[in-house]
Amino acid sequence: MRSKLPDIPTSIFAKMSQLAAEQNAINLSQGFPDFPSSPELINLVTKAMKEGYNQYAPMPGLIELREAISQKIELLHQYYYHPDSEITVTCGATQAIYTILSSFIFSGDEVIVFAPAYDSYAPTILAQGGIVREIALKAPDYSIPWEEVQAVKNNKTKMIIINSPHNPTGTILSLGDMKKLEGFVEGTNILILSDEVYEHIIFDNEIHHSVSRFPSLASRSFVVGSFGKTFHNTGWKMGYCASPERLMHEFRKIHQFVVFSVNHPIQKALAEFLKKESNYLSVPQFYQQKRDTFLSLIKDSRFTFTPSKGTYFQLLNYAELTDLNDEKYAEHLTVDHKIASIPISVFYKPKKDLKLLRFCFAKKNDTLEKAADILRKL
Amino acid sequence: MRSKLPDIPTSIFAKMSQLAAEQNAINLSQGFPDFPSSPELINLVTKAMKEGYNQYAPMPGLIELREAISQKIELLHQYYYHPDSEITVTCGATQAIYTILSSFIFSGDEVIVFAPAYDSYAPTILAQGGIVREIALKAPDYSIPWEEVQAVKNNKTKMIIINSPHNPTGTILSLGDMKKLEGFVEGTNILILSDEVYEHIIFDNEIHHSVSRFPSLASRSFVVGSFGKTFHNTGWKMGYCASPERLMHEFRKIHQFVVFSVNHPIQKALAEFLKKESNYLSVPQFYQQKRDTFLSLIKDSRFTFTPSKGTYFQLLNYAELTDLNDEKYAEHLTVDHKIASIPISVFYKPKKDLKLLRFCFAKKNDTLEKAADILRKL
Ligand SMILES: CSCCC(=O)C(=O)O
Ligand SMILES: CSCCC(=O)C(=O)O
Repeated sequence: MRSKLPDIPTSIFAKMSQLAAEQNAINLSQGFPDFPSSPELINLVTKAMKEGYNQYAPMPGLIELREAISQKIELLHQYYYHPDSEITVTCGATQAIYTILSSFIFSGDEVIVFAPAYDSYAPTILAQGGIVREIALKAPDYSIPWEEVQAVKNNKTKMIIINSPHNPTGTILSLGDMKKLEGFVEGTNILILSDEVYEHIIFDNEIHHSVSRFPSLASRSFVVGSFGKTFHNTGWKMGYCASPERLMHEFRKIHQFVVFSVNHPIQKALAEFLKKESNYLSVPQFYQQKRDTFLSLIKDSRFTFTPSKGTYFQLLNYAELTDLNDEKYAEHLTVDHKIASIPISVFYKPKKDLKLLRFCFAKKNDTLEKAADILRKL
Repeated sequence: MRSKLPDIPTSIFAKMSQLAAEQNAINLSQGFPDFPSSPELINLVTKAMKEGYNQYAPMPGLIELREAISQKIELLHQYYYHPDSEITVTCGATQAIYTILSSFIFSGDEVIVFAPAYDSYAPTILAQGGIVREIALKAPDYSIPWEEVQAVKNNKTKMIIINSPHNPTGTILSLGDMKKLEGFVEGTNILILSDEVYEHIIFDNEIHHSVSRFPSLASRSFVVGSFGKTFHNTGWKMGYCASPERLMHEFRKIHQFVVFSVNHPIQKALAEFLKKESNYLSVPQFYQQKRDTFLSLIKDSRFTFTPSKGTYFQLLNYAELTDLNDEKYAEHLTVDHKIASIPISVFYKPKKDLKLLRFCFAKKNDTLEKAADILRKL
């Protein structure tokens, strides 16, 4: 049978989480917290269900939630998205990404993607008949090689995907990068998909340079956000997409047939929860402590690393420990040492073994201590 | 800008529900209940959130829920779907339909669709570059004209979409239809998308002839189900897809990038709720009372109708009332008489005005009485 994705295996996140469960290993692979979501937020969802918010939400999302998202972005980035026509609530950031790419990528369109990258971008482009122009980020700091980006640009370049804070490397884009991006798209019709799902997980008082801070970028960008990452409930599958109206109009044409609308009671609860700004403004500090705890616990291990600047992920280099490739080593650590991580090679095509594993530190301190005990002994 | 769906307007359901809200009209347009969802089920969702089911569910769905779905199908239709490899939980039936069509329809593939039909089928096919072969159901009983179906079959026919109980007409497929379908696909590779979201809303002790009752059909079919329809919470956006493993394998390749996975606490709650068979076995009787109440209330009106055999929709013919086309009349009823319905012409391409409106009777008796008061006076 003809396949839309003949060469695509099951997502590495599903694969490693399943192996972790089977092996009863500490699961620092797939990115999700192991501590509770806010009891206040859970109560708000319960309240919404009891009050009867159980039928279809409006197709683009509950207007109160779209207003709350708009206010958050305006507060943080001084840019106003019109809640009516420029914001849509999605079934997680993944659905936003899928819908953006299905709406705008036609057969033969080229999309610039930086590697390593979140594993849904490339297959989703391919499923539309699009062409992935993969550019490797430059070690050791995983910066964007702008000359190479410029060199692949041609009249088939339809879109560029950026992601800051960056999964899996934990780097962030600088003001200089944003200026380079402005120069890159100037005078073209190139669209920007800006995956900002870790916007609230950024450390050391760094600024998150959202594309919405740059009018010349915002006017051609989709900003993708995630409540699961920010409020510790990845399993509720709530995200959003913000873009100028002319782009959102096309997005919604597809969105209405992908899911029609998304979970209503949770939208009601999130609208309420977002009113208290400290609920999201406190997130960077919370995760910075997690990062610092994890890094201080493993500083005497044989892994080498540069501290993560954002996201809840830390890359660790194990070149001093073994010659095994990263997939083999990730499997070995899960099966024989009961700690699961994500090998980075799978995020390159062809695979590129850099002796790097990604560990998620969105975990209880107790879990981080147990994990570090294992990692220090290797 | 090039559009994937240049000719597709906003979904009629979003449009009419919005007009109903603006006009403060009784909303019998979009299909959803106006009575509460089960308090027991709401409590189960709360319990699941408090117990910590708040992170990613497994990509294909919580295994307990997939097992419960498998058991339900086996009980009702004596056909076994393997929960591991043949069932996936989706963000509503709409996402299941979108994912099936994106996974299997390539540019130039033909899909047979009966009109009038649920409005997501055709645009979703078109968005994949597929070709819609629309066949009008035969008045007055909206039966399938099998000779016409046979006549459009050719070597590009990739799929046929059936839907029983049928939205918007309220008819059901007979055993004879299923035999005709068996004959139609025999010796071909034609796939079947069987939209069975109203499987539990069927009246007068009729049998729901699921494709899963016919091994020769089940082996090439996707069965799409909906918890929102069955348990009165369309806003929770929970559905599923069941199919043979070789088809489910391709479905999941796309599903993992469309949404990755769906709401975890609700999956946990549904798995528990499905254990009590009466929770779904009581649904036909519940909705039969709604239908009977509605029909007896409007029997002295000037509308003509054939009683709905399934779904929570009733078609009413208004030819004796006015010459207005159905879109105009639906608008007039909403604006001037404060009752919203769905015009049927929009489900045909080109539009076909049959002087038919669809009314949703999934409403409190009080709402049905108020609605009937208006309809009787027309
Ligand atoms: C949707 S599963 C992947 C979760 C995630 O974002 C990650 O682990 O990188
Ligand atoms: C997803 S909105 C449409 C609801 C429905 O199934 C209908 O009204 O026909």
